[in-house]
Amino acid sequence: MSEFRQNMATKEWVIVAPSRGKRPSDFAKLTIKRPPVPSFRADCPFCLGNEAQTPEPVYIKSVADKWQIRVVPNKYAALQPDLAAARSYVGSFLSAKGYGIAEVVVETPEHNKTIATMQLSEISAILTAYRERQKEISKNEAINLIMIFRNYGPLAGTSLEHPHSQIIATPMLPPHVRNPIEQAVMHFDKYGTCVYCDMIEEERRQKERIVLETENFLAFCPWAARTPFEARIYPKRHAASYVSINDKEIEDLAGVLRTMLGKLYNGLDNPDYNYILRSAPVGDEDVRYSHWYLMIIPKIGTPAGFEIGSGIYINTVAPEESASYLRDINPEVTGEATII
Amino acid sequence: MSEFRQNMATKEWVIVAPSRGKRPSDFAKLTIKRPPVPSFRADCPFCLGNEAQTPEPVYIKSVADKWQIRVVPNKYAALQPDLAAARSYVGSFLSAKGYGIAEVVVETPEHNKTIATMQLSEISAILTAYRERQKEISKNEAINLIMIFRNYGPLAGTSLEHPHSQIIATPMLPPHVRNPIEQAVMHFDKYGTCVYCDMIEEERRQKERIVLETENFLAFCPWAARTPFEARIYPKRHAASYVSINDKEIEDLAGVLRTMLGKLYNGLDNPDYNYILRSAPVGDEDVRYSHWYLMIIPKIGTPAGFEIGSGIYINTVAPEESASYLRDINPEVTGEATII
Repeated sequence: MSEFRQNMATKEWVIVAPSRGKRPSDFAKLTIKRPPVPSFRADCPFCLGNEAQTPEPVYIKSVADKWQIRVVPNKYAALQPDLAAARSYVGSFLSAKGYGIAEVVVETPEHNKTIATMQLSEISAILTAYRERQKEISKNEAINLIMIFRNYGPLAGTSLEHPHSQIIATPMLPPHVRNPIEQAVMHFDKYGTCVYCDMIEEERRQKERIVLETENFLAFCPWAARTPFEARIYPKRHAASYVSINDKEIEDLAGVLRTMLGKLYNGLDNPDYNYILRSAPVGDEDVRYSHWYLMIIPKIGTPAGFEIGSGIYINTVAPEESASYLRDINPEVTGEATII
Repeated sequence: MSEFRQNMATKEWVIVAPSRGKRPSDFAKLTIKRPPVPSFRADCPFCLGNEAQTPEPVYIKSVADKWQIRVVPNKYAALQPDLAAARSYVGSFLSAKGYGIAEVVVETPEHNKTIATMQLSEISAILTAYRERQKEISKNEAINLIMIFRNYGPLAGTSLEHPHSQIIATPMLPPHVRNPIEQAVMHFDKYGTCVYCDMIEEERRQKERIVLETENFLAFCPWAARTPFEARIYPKRHAASYVSINDKEIEDLAGVLRTMLGKLYNGLDNPDYNYILRSAPVGDEDVRYSHWYLMIIPKIGTPAGFEIGSGIYINTVAPEESASYLRDINPEVTGEATII
């Protein structure tokens, strides 16, 4: 029997409608099989030795004279920083030049690594780069929204193999971002608490959707997960923006992230996925009603007319099942990893 | 150079960022090539003679003793009408049984037709079935939202070849639907007009995104289209709900729909697509601030982390280019049509 569930924070509904006779492991069959890739490709702009093919880095982390992370302006950026941010009308329609910031986080010099197969120190370095770039970009008076995300595999919207994430920062604060904030403010007005803190507490109390918990983080498949195996990682202490994460928390998060992505890798046969690091808008870093988190969305299933039209997602695996399945999966990726 | 554009009705932003050197016709290469399919399949529950494989129809249209359209309850429905609609809490989380209505509109007895290749009378019959089912379902006091949509091809989320559309009706009115309504109400408060009527008027004035216009309808690639070749068909007279369409308008719409889908078929090499018929919620059929429309979304490109996180879509073909391209395409599908 299917069930409607409401996301406590956004008030969006999902329908949890398990497919008859389908087990979580069946979803592994849906992923695209990929051949192993080499550690270096001469034609890859992000590989070691090919640095001249990218713009000058805006951030670099080196270890023993060799770069470990490079953050570079996106050469094929949808937004550019050298434009005026002012808005104007074309007839009745509102418009603005494509002002914004688009950067690529080249996560490692090696072409065939991914977070599930990296050392913890390498992942910490990526998470530190996110924080430093978010802090730096936040100083820009014209920027209101900073999105940090990773598209892994073609179903997740990337065609580049080399391990990378992206940062896109815009002057616009769209309704898609604003509406959940308004819901969180209403919750704060009513209860005097952060709705995400309350949700985390409730997930801990109900237990069955939790995949893992550490000193600082809780990783779970949320009550109103939109897709099979959707998972989120929340800091347990209240914090509206990722910029406030400290080095010790980053080390902890690196382990949680690798474990979660390792479980997906082994449990779903290296699926394509997006992960998205969501913070309160620039200027709202210290608000009491919002909470940063990282959402991981394996690309399983296709949003169709109903989802696009209504915003109500039909999730064919109950998040309790997703969590139970992931809990039992060994996160350690061994053997020759197949990347992208 | 890229550009932000705001959807006048929903206030959502898109980024129009044309890919360098890419022409609209290049997108045809992205679609999946499909072999022709037969007009009958013994194992297809929707084919002529296999009627016993579906539940009893809730609507049927026959021509000369042969059924032309059957609307049947969805055998694998995500929602079911024999459940209580009441909501309840699981801890702090809101829940409800999966009460709702899910129907399949079997559009023709023939396995290998599609709207782009149908007679106008056949398309009118489909559009009439939509109206009659929407009217009937609207009488249900527990239903607030009725979505009518067509998923064409696997990228659009269907695995069934036989020509069909779907109706899903829910008690829930989700934020994704409610938020644009609130924007429309604010526009009405400010200007005393329907924001969609104003948008239609502005698109007619600016002309360059219009694909075709008839006595009753305007079809265009909207100013803030989220994806390449996204198109919408709006009734020119104000009407908040599709239930108000009359038979003469249905005949007109049948021609517009076939022309638009025929242009996509020929211009983009039979792409997968979703179309969605959006009306005001049940009970709001006569409101002055809302407007029904049909949106057509060819499945080109993949929403990635940025789109999922921000709701801002990056559209790599300016809607002016999409419209200009579609205007020049012959809508008549000839030869052996390749379906799904």
